[in-house]
Amino acid sequence: MEVEVLRLTHRYVRDERITTHLFLTARAFGASKVIYTGQRDEKMEEKIGKVTKNWGGPFTIEYEKDWKQTIMRWKARKGEIIHLTFYGLPIQNVIQDIRESRKNTLIIVGGAKVPGIIYKLSDWNVSVTSQPHSEISALSVFLHELFQGRELLKIFKNAKLKIIPQPRGKKVLDL
Amino acid sequence: MEVEVLRLTHRYVRDERITTHLFLTARAFGASKVIYTGQRDEKMEEKIGKVTKNWGGPFTIEYEKDWKQTIMRWKARKGEIIHLTFYGLPIQNVIQDIRESRKNTLIIVGGAKVPGIIYKLSDWNVSVTSQPHSEISALSVFLHELFQGRELLKIFKNAKLKIIPQPRGKKVLDL
Repeated sequence: MEVEVLRLTHRYVRDERITTHLFLTARAFGASKVIYTGQRDEKMEEKIGKVTKNWGGPFTIEYEKDWKQTIMRWKARKGEIIHLTFYGLPIQNVIQDIRESRKNTLIIVGGAKVPGIIYKLSDWNVSVTSQPHSEISALSVFLHELFQGRELLKIFKNAKLKIIPQPRGKKVLDL
Repeated sequence: MEVEVLRLTHRYVRDERITTHLFLTARAFGASKVIYTGQRDEKMEEKIGKVTKNWGGPFTIEYEKDWKQTIMRWKARKGEIIHLTFYGLPIQNVIQDIRESRKNTLIIVGGAKVPGIIYKLSDWNVSVTSQPHSEISALSVFLHELFQGRELLKIFKNAKLKIIPQPRGKKVLDL
């Protein structure tokens, strides 16, 4: 099962840190690709590329002018589309059905204003709590539930750096 | 079991959105209080206060000049101190021991530069993946694992707004 993340309406400078955290979360929790619309942000793309170069992949980032293109391509591939929104159905009620479909999955994460049609084009509108918090938390917990914790054991390929977990202090291998 | 979150070295303006997401995550995933050091940020405190007023609590935010004070108080209360760091022991290896201790828990989330002594003063240094991503993801997945998903069912008191989950579209109750 392949998982990609689509971030809508990224705003240059203003959203840089939030979208960077979101995309690093996507990578660390098992997605293979992130796509974003809104304002092109080469500085952010470089940051993500650098992390993948140092810590391994495969992981790619892509800019797309129009989210409709991404969704159409995804529909043509017969993949499943999940939209994370705090208005959606509770993750604990739907995650098993989503897991069992075993389809390639596109996870849509909203930006400043989500067009109403996204709710209709998505196969599932899913909430991770019905409380306001962060798209970063929503994505991490969703992926953690989708992969049932197996993502924590993921081995990244071609990494130059690797952490050796320690009870106290820091240990990084330079490979 | 009471859970509080200590965020180190918050930087005014620069960290506003990240710390706001972090604190809203703490609230949504079951912590009762957040404390931060670094630069005082009244705008951020107001934001958090407003969310709690609208969406319920109890949840408080506190500024502390010196993190040593918070840690000393916590040690005196005989609570457990968890430091989230990607250098630490994998969550999947330690979470059961942490859960079973059933102690009140202070979760430390680093900022720009974490003093080495934090690693020593903490009972556990815990990593959520050994990959670079986001303190927001680390906190959400840690709390989700600590509470074993029960946090998703949490009922907030004195809420003015409440979402009624929908398969498509939005429904908010104004209480």
